[in-house]
Amino acid sequence: MASTDSNLKIVHGEAGYVLEDVPHFSDYIPNLPTYPNPLRSNPAYSVVKQYFVHVDDTVPQKVVVHKDSPRGVHFRRAGPRQKVYFKSEDVRACIVTCGGLCPGLNTVIREIVCGLSYMYGVNNVIGIDGGYRGFYSKNTITLTPKVVNDIHKRGGTFLGTSRGGHDTKKIVDSIQDRGINQVYIIGGDGTQRGASVIYEEIRRRGLKVAVVGIPKTIDNDIPVIDKSFGFDTAVEEAQRAINAAHVEAESAENGIGVVKLMGRYSGFIAMYATLASRDVDCCLIPESPFFLEGNGGLFEFIEKRLKENGHMVIVIAEGAGQDLLAEENAQAMNEKDASGNKLLQDVGLWISQRIKDYFSRKNKMAITLKYIDPTYMIRAVPSNASDNVYCTLLAQSAVHGAMAGFTGYTSGLVNGRQTYIPFQVSY
Amino acid sequence: MASTDSNLKIVHGEAGYVLEDVPHFSDYIPNLPTYPNPLRSNPAYSVVKQYFVHVDDTVPQKVVVHKDSPRGVHFRRAGPRQKVYFKSEDVRACIVTCGGLCPGLNTVIREIVCGLSYMYGVNNVIGIDGGYRGFYSKNTITLTPKVVNDIHKRGGTFLGTSRGGHDTKKIVDSIQDRGINQVYIIGGDGTQRGASVIYEEIRRRGLKVAVVGIPKTIDNDIPVIDKSFGFDTAVEEAQRAINAAHVEAESAENGIGVVKLMGRYSGFIAMYATLASRDVDCCLIPESPFFLEGNGGLFEFIEKRLKENGHMVIVIAEGAGQDLLAEENAQAMNEKDASGNKLLQDVGLWISQRIKDYFSRKNKMAITLKYIDPTYMIRAVPSNASDNVYCTLLAQSAVHGAMAGFTGYTSGLVNGRQTYIPFQVSY
Amino acid sequence: MASTDSNLKIVHGEAGYVLEDVPHFSDYIPNLPTYPNPLRSNPAYSVVKQYFVHVDDTVPQKVVVHKDSPRGVHFRRAGPRQKVYFKSEDVRACIVTCGGLCPGLNTVIREIVCGLSYMYGVNNVIGIDGGYRGFYSKNTITLTPKVVNDIHKRGGTFLGTSRGGHDTKKIVDSIQDRGINQVYIIGGDGTQRGASVIYEEIRRRGLKVAVVGIPKTIDNDIPVIDKSFGFDTAVEEAQRAINAAHVEAESAENGIGVVKLMGRYSGFIAMYATLASRDVDCCLIPESPFFLEGNGGLFEFIEKRLKENGHMVIVIAEGAGQDLLAEENAQAMNEKDASGNKLLQDVGLWISQRIKDYFSRKNKMAITLKYIDPTYMIRAVPSNASDNVYCTLLAQSAVHGAMAGFTGYTSGLVNGRQTYIPFQVSY
Amino acid sequence: MASTDSNLKIVHGEAGYVLEDVPHFSDYIPNLPTYPNPLRSNPAYSVVKQYFVHVDDTVPQKVVVHKDSPRGVHFRRAGPRQKVYFKSEDVRACIVTCGGLCPGLNTVIREIVCGLSYMYGVNNVIGIDGGYRGFYSKNTITLTPKVVNDIHKRGGTFLGTSRGGHDTKKIVDSIQDRGINQVYIIGGDGTQRGASVIYEEIRRRGLKVAVVGIPKTIDNDIPVIDKSFGFDTAVEEAQRAINAAHVEAESAENGIGVVKLMGRYSGFIAMYATLASRDVDCCLIPESPFFLEGNGGLFEFIEKRLKENGHMVIVIAEGAGQDLLAEENAQAMNEKDASGNKLLQDVGLWISQRIKDYFSRKNKMAITLKYIDPTYMIRAVPSNASDNVYCTLLAQSAVHGAMAGFTGYTSGLVNGRQTYIPFQVSY
Repeated sequence: MASTDSNLKIVHGEAGYVLEDVPHFSDYIPNLPTYPNPLRSNPAYSVVKQYFVHVDDTVPQKVVVHKDSPRGVHFRRAGPRQKVYFKSEDVRACIVTCGGLCPGLNTVIREIVCGLSYMYGVNNVIGIDGGYRGFYSKNTITLTPKVVNDIHKRGGTFLGTSRGGHDTKKIVDSIQDRGINQVYIIGGDGTQRGASVIYEEIRRRGLKVAVVGIPKTIDNDIPVIDKSFGFDTAVEEAQRAINAAHVEAESAENGIGVVKLMGRYSGFIAMYATLASRDVDCCLIPESPFFLEGNGGLFEFIEKRLKENGHMVIVIAEGAGQDLLAEENAQAMNEKDASGNKLLQDVGLWISQRIKDYFSRKNKMAITLKYIDPTYMIRAVPSNASDNVYCTLLAQSAVHGAMAGFTGYTSGLVNGRQTYIPFQVSY
Repeated sequence: MASTDSNLKIVHGEAGYVLEDVPHFSDYIPNLPTYPNPLRSNPAYSVVKQYFVHVDDTVPQKVVVHKDSPRGVHFRRAGPRQKVYFKSEDVRACIVTCGGLCPGLNTVIREIVCGLSYMYGVNNVIGIDGGYRGFYSKNTITLTPKVVNDIHKRGGTFLGTSRGGHDTKKIVDSIQDRGINQVYIIGGDGTQRGASVIYEEIRRRGLKVAVVGIPKTIDNDIPVIDKSFGFDTAVEEAQRAINAAHVEAESAENGIGVVKLMGRYSGFIAMYATLASRDVDCCLIPESPFFLEGNGGLFEFIEKRLKENGHMVIVIAEGAGQDLLAEENAQAMNEKDASGNKLLQDVGLWISQRIKDYFSRKNKMAITLKYIDPTYMIRAVPSNASDNVYCTLLAQSAVHGAMAGFTGYTSGLVNGRQTYIPFQVSY
Repeated sequence: MASTDSNLKIVHGEAGYVLEDVPHFSDYIPNLPTYPNPLRSNPAYSVVKQYFVHVDDTVPQKVVVHKDSPRGVHFRRAGPRQKVYFKSEDVRACIVTCGGLCPGLNTVIREIVCGLSYMYGVNNVIGIDGGYRGFYSKNTITLTPKVVNDIHKRGGTFLGTSRGGHDTKKIVDSIQDRGINQVYIIGGDGTQRGASVIYEEIRRRGLKVAVVGIPKTIDNDIPVIDKSFGFDTAVEEAQRAINAAHVEAESAENGIGVVKLMGRYSGFIAMYATLASRDVDCCLIPESPFFLEGNGGLFEFIEKRLKENGHMVIVIAEGAGQDLLAEENAQAMNEKDASGNKLLQDVGLWISQRIKDYFSRKNKMAITLKYIDPTYMIRAVPSNASDNVYCTLLAQSAVHGAMAGFTGYTSGLVNGRQTYIPFQVSY
Repeated sequence: MASTDSNLKIVHGEAGYVLEDVPHFSDYIPNLPTYPNPLRSNPAYSVVKQYFVHVDDTVPQKVVVHKDSPRGVHFRRAGPRQKVYFKSEDVRACIVTCGGLCPGLNTVIREIVCGLSYMYGVNNVIGIDGGYRGFYSKNTITLTPKVVNDIHKRGGTFLGTSRGGHDTKKIVDSIQDRGINQVYIIGGDGTQRGASVIYEEIRRRGLKVAVVGIPKTIDNDIPVIDKSFGFDTAVEEAQRAINAAHVEAESAENGIGVVKLMGRYSGFIAMYATLASRDVDCCLIPESPFFLEGNGGLFEFIEKRLKENGHMVIVIAEGAGQDLLAEENAQAMNEKDASGNKLLQDVGLWISQRIKDYFSRKNKMAITLKYIDPTYMIRAVPSNASDNVYCTLLAQSAVHGAMAGFTGYTSGLVNGRQTYIPFQVSY
C-alpha cells in the first residue's frame, strides 16, 4: 500500500493530477506488519459498516474547474482501511488541547476516545492536562468512554488548555517515556506548527508514533479546509449579539449598535454572521481596508444610513482596521501621550469612540451608540448539532488515519469530504 | 364609591389598617357621571369574566405578621370595576416609554392597546415617539391591535425611547391640545417622578385625564412591589454569561471569570442570577460592602478559592464597590494623574484590573481572567413567558384603573396581587 | 417554643387570626434538648446571614382583605431558627422522588443536599432509588455536594422515579432500620398523601424522624401555594409548541393548530401559556365546560374565527372536555363498538378528529389541522432560572424546618413568602 | 456564450468530462440581445463585488476520485455573469411555495426579493398565495424589500402553501396573462416535477420566461446536492426531542424513549440527529431494513441494552420499517379486523405499541416507554444561522441564473459550490 501511495506524488501527464500525500509509517519504518481492521469483526457494525475506503481514493483541492484545466492537488480521502498498522492492545493514545476555547473541543475529545474504543477496541487513552506544558509538568487524565460520555454537552475543554508551553524535546521525551504511540493534538496554527516539529523529532528518533493534528480555529481562517469546527456554532451564537445591537439601535433615535466579533486575520465569522442576520448595515473585516473620514469613508456612510433609516448596526471583526489603529497609536507615541493606548488596542472600543467623537465634534447629530463584545460568550457555548456531527466525523477520521499508519497529517474537510492533509500543507 | 374610599385613609382603631389610597377623579372633579363597565356586555367574556373587583378589596403591604401586629398599609386591589368613569368612545389614550431598554416593554404596550380595545372598546390610542420629548417634538404613532399584534415577540420598545426631555408644561399642553384623557407612562424612577409632576399639573388645571405609571426597572429596585417586569427575563439571560464565565474559568489553570450585571443601587439581578446558576463563587452587590486587600478581603478569598478549586466565577453588580472606586478616583485626582478615570467608572473592568494587578504584583500565581459584560445582550431580548404574563396583567390592571376613574397611581404586584399604588408611595 | 406555638392554634378574638400550625417534635416527644443553630458560627455566612426567623412570624393565606375582615388562616413562616433539634453529626437524611417528571426535581435534590451540608454541616444524606418502592427493594445512593454539583443543569430526576410502590410499613421499617431521621419526599398529591401516612406511622412509633414534603405538580393545581416548582419552566417551554402550531396554521389556508398541554384537573399551564403567547384563539380548560356543536359551541367559534382571520390556534388542557369524551365513550360502549376507544382517551387526538369530521362532514370548508403534543418535551427540560431560584429556596426552607424540629409539613410559597404548611392542609 | 455552452454537452475524449448543462434562452429563442450586468455599476458593491463567474466554470458531481478516473458529470457554477438577458425594468418575477413547511422558506423568499432589488434593480416581484393553485385562484401578493424585511425571523412561509393544485395550462396562462417572466418555484420533488412541466409548456409556447426551481425537502433526500435548506435547523431542533426522550428514559427503570423524526425515503435527519446527540442507542432508517423478533432482531437488542444500561433511546425515521407495517396491515385486513389500522400508519406509534406488547406479553420486564413526535415543532421553527446563510446564497444564485438567461434549472450546492442543475437531473 505504502509503496503504491508514494508513487502518487508524481505528476501523471497533462490530464493527470498531483497528490499531496500524507506521511505513512512504512515510508520511514519499513517492514512493519499489518493487521486486519478490527472493525471487520465488530458485530455492532456487522451490517452497516462493512465498508472500507479504497487506498487510491482522493479528493481534489479545487472543484471549480474548466473542461481542460489540469487536475491539480488532491488529498487522500479519510476513512477506515482494510489493514491497520497497530494492534488494538498495543495502542496508547494521548490527546492534548491548546490555545483559546472553541465550541466542539469536548466533542472532538469524546469522539477520539469513543472512536478508538468502540471501533478499534483501544482502551488505553490519556488526556494531557492544560495544553502542551501538561506533557511534562502535570499528571495525565485517564480517558474512557464513560468519563467522556457527557462532555460534549458542555462548552470549553475537559482537558484544560493553555497557550505556549511548547518544549519539543521534553514533549517527545514524555511521549517516549510514557509509551504513547498515538498523539492527537487539537489547536490553532501555532499549535499545529508545534505538532509538525514534534512529528519531525519523532521521525528523527525513529519512533512508531502517529502524530495527528486536528485544526482548531474559531475564525475559520485555514485556506485548505472547508470550515473549522466550532465556526457554525460561533456564527449562530453571534446572532444574539447582533439582534441585541439591532434592538438597542432601533429603540433609540440615531441609534448605532456596534458588535465586535472574532477574526484576527480573516472576517469569516463577521461576514457569515452578517449574512445570517440581515440586520447588519456595515461589516468591517481585515480583508477589506477602509478609512474613517472623507468621501467614501465610514463616517459618511454612517451619516447617510442614519438619515435614511434612523438607526444602524455595524459588525467589526477584531482584526479589521488594525492599520488605522496602529497609525493612531504611532502618532500618540510620538506625541508622548500614552493615555488611552490600552483602549485603542480593542478595535471595537476604538471605533465606537471614534464614531462618538465624530458626531459630537461636528455637532452633527445626537447619536446613541451601544457597543457589544460577545467574544467569551460565543467561545464558551457547547457546539450545536451541525458542529457535533462535524467534530464526530473529524475525530473518527483522525482515528482511522492513525490506526492505518498515517502520521504527520491533520484531519480536515475538503469540498465536503473528510481528508488527510499533510502538515506542510495545512498551515 | 369615592367618598367611601377616601374614608379608608383613616386609621381604624388598634387592630385596624391604613389604606394608602390612590387618587380618584371624583375626589377633585365632583359630580362625574358613571357608566356600566362594557366588559359586562362583552360576549367574548360572557361566561368566564362576569367578575368585578369589590370596591373595598385591598392587599396588605406586609405579609409576614405576628398575631398581634397592627395591620399596617394596604393597597387598593387592581381589576375591573362595575362602574367606569369614561365612555369608551370618549377615551383618547397615549402611551410613552422612557429610559433604558427592559424586556417586556413591547408586551406592556401591546396589552394596553389590546386591553383598551378588546375589554373596553376603546380604539383611539396613540404612541408618543421616543420618550417624553416626543410629546412636543414629534408626530405620534397610531396604535391598533393589528399594529401591535406581534411586537411582544421582539425586544426593545416599539415606540422608541430616550432619557430626559421632560418639560412638564409642554407635555401637559400637548396632552390638552391633542385631547388625550388617559396617559400611560412606562419608565424608571426618574420617569415616574416626572409622571407625578405631570399628574399634579393636570390636577391643577382640573383636567379629566388619568395619569398612570407602569414602573420599569430591570434592576428590580422598587421596594413596594414584588418584582419589576423584565427582571425574570434578565436573570434568565444572565445565565448565559455566567455559564460562559464558568466554562472559560474551568478550562484554564487558575481561571477566573468575572461577570458584570445590572444593578446600580441594588444587587437583585446579581443575587438571583447567582442563586439560579450555582456556579458562582462570589457575588458582589451594592448592599454589602467589601474591601480588596487584607484579612477577610476579596483577594484573600480569591486566592483561597483558586487553591481549593482551581477556578472561580465572580458576579458583580454594576453598583457594587462604588465607594472603593470613588476613593481610588479621588486619589488619582489628587495625584494629578487623570488617565484611566474613564476605565475606573466601569466596576467590572476596574475589579478585573485590580485582580490581575494583585496576582502579577505579588508574583502569587499565574491567573487567567476573562471579563464579560452582557448588559446590552440582556436588556434587548424579548420577555420570557413569565414576564409576558406579568406584563399582560400589569397592563390590563393599569387599564382597569384608568377606566374606573383612578389616576396618579402605578400598577404593581404586591404580595402576588395586582394593586394600585399612589405615586407618592411608589417612588 | 413548642408550647407557645401550639397555643397559636387557638383563635384570638374578633380581630385575631387562626394559625394552621405544623407539627413539632416537642409536641409529641417532650423534653427534647435543643442546640444552637450551626449557621450562627458558619464563617461563610458570617456577615450576611446572621439572621433568624422569629418564632411567631406567620403569613396569611388570604391577602385580598377588607378593612374589617377577620384575619383567617396563617402559616408559619419558613426559615432558619435560632435553636435546632438535631445535632449535625446525628442527622441521617434521605430524599425520594415519586411520580412523573417535572423541571426542577434535580435542583430540589441538589439544594437539600447542599443546604444540609453547607448550612448545617450535615454530610450523611442518601437518595432512595426509583420512588417509594426503592425504600425496600433497592440500594440507596450516596449523596454529597460533589455528586449533585451539576445535576440541576439536567432535566429529569437523578434519583429515578416510579409511580405507586407505597407500602407504609415496609417504608417506615426501612427508615427505622437504616437509622434515617429526616425524610424529604418530593412528589404529587398521591405521594404527599403517602407522606402523611408515613408521618402518622412514625409518630405512632414515637420516632424522632422529621417527615417533610415538597409538593411537585407541573400542573400547578395546589390551592394553598402560589405556584408549584417547574410551572414557570413548563409555561416557557409550551411556547415552542404554540409558536409551531401558530406557524403551521398561518401557512395553510384555514389552518388550525391544536396544542395539548398538561393539566388533568386544572388549566393553569394552558391558561398561562395562552396568556404568555398571545397567538392562541381558544383555550379549553377543565374548569370551564364547553360543548362542540350548536349555537355557542366550539365548532361555531372555529368557523367564525377562520372566516375572520384565515387560521387559528387552539390550546387544550389534557383534562378539558373529559365529560364529553366520557359520554361518547359510553355511547360507543353501548353500541358494542369498542374500536377507537384508546384514541378517545387522549383529548387532543379526540378533539382534532372531531374538528376534522365536522368540517369534512358538512363539506363546510377545507381545513388543515396540525396536532402537537409537547408533553414529554416540556416535562424533561432542565428548570429555568426562575424555577432554579424557587427550588433552591423551597429546598432550603424544607431543611431549616426539619432541623428546627418541625415535621409533617410541606414547604411552600404563600403570597410570596416561604412557609410550612401542615400535611392536612396541603392536600 | 450559448453556442459554446451547448457544445459542452459533448464528451471530450478519455480524460475529458461530461457537462450536464442547464437550458439557456438562447438555446431556443435565438438572437436575443444581452445587457451589461447592472451589478457592474452598483456603487454598494463597487469595491468588493466586481467579480463575475467565468462562463466555463463547472463543478464536478464526483469528488472522490482516483488518478485515472474519468471526469464524469459537471454542473455549471452559479453566480453573476458579465452579461444578462433581462433589462432590470422589464423583469416581472413571481415566487411560489408549495408542499410542507421547512425552516428557511421565508429566508429564500426574502433573498429572492432583495437579491432582485439590490443587485439588479428589479422592483416588480409578486408572491403567489397558497401554492400552485394560487396562480389561478387567488390574488397575488406584492413583494418589496420592505415587506419581506423581517420574515426570515419567522418560521413557515409568508406566501402560504398547499399541496397539489397543479394545472399546467392554467398556471402558464396566468404567467402569460400577468406578464411574468421569471418564475421561482420552491418546493419538494412533486413540486419540481411540476416546475419541469411548466418549463416545457413555456418552452413550447416560445415564451421568454425563466423557470427556476429551489429544491425544498427537509428530509435532505436529493442525491445530487450536498444538503437541502432547513436540514441543519431540523437536525438542531431534533436534539430537543432526543434530549427529552433521554431524560425520560434515564429517570425511569427500564425506561425507553422513542423519537420519530422526518424522513419518508431516507434517514438523513434521523442519522444526523443521532450522530449529533450521542444519546441514541438505536437509529432505524428506511435504507436499512430490520426485523422485530428473533436472533438479531430489535427486541433482542432492546432487551440486551436495558440489561446493560437500564435505559435506552430509539430514533426512528418515519419511513423506516414500512415493510413490516404493511405486512401487518395486510394480515389485519385478511383477518377482517380493521381496528387499529389507523394507528399502524404512524410508525412511531406502531413500534412503541409493539415494544410494549413484547415486554408485557412475555412478562419479560416492566418497561416505561415514552413516545415523542416532534415533527411539527421542527418544521415550523425559523432557520438557524447556517441555514440563513445557505438560503441566502441559494436565492442569490437562483436570481443570477435567471438574469443571465438560464431556465429549467434548480439552484443547488454541489461539493460546497453553488451550481445550476438541469431539471432532468435534479429529480
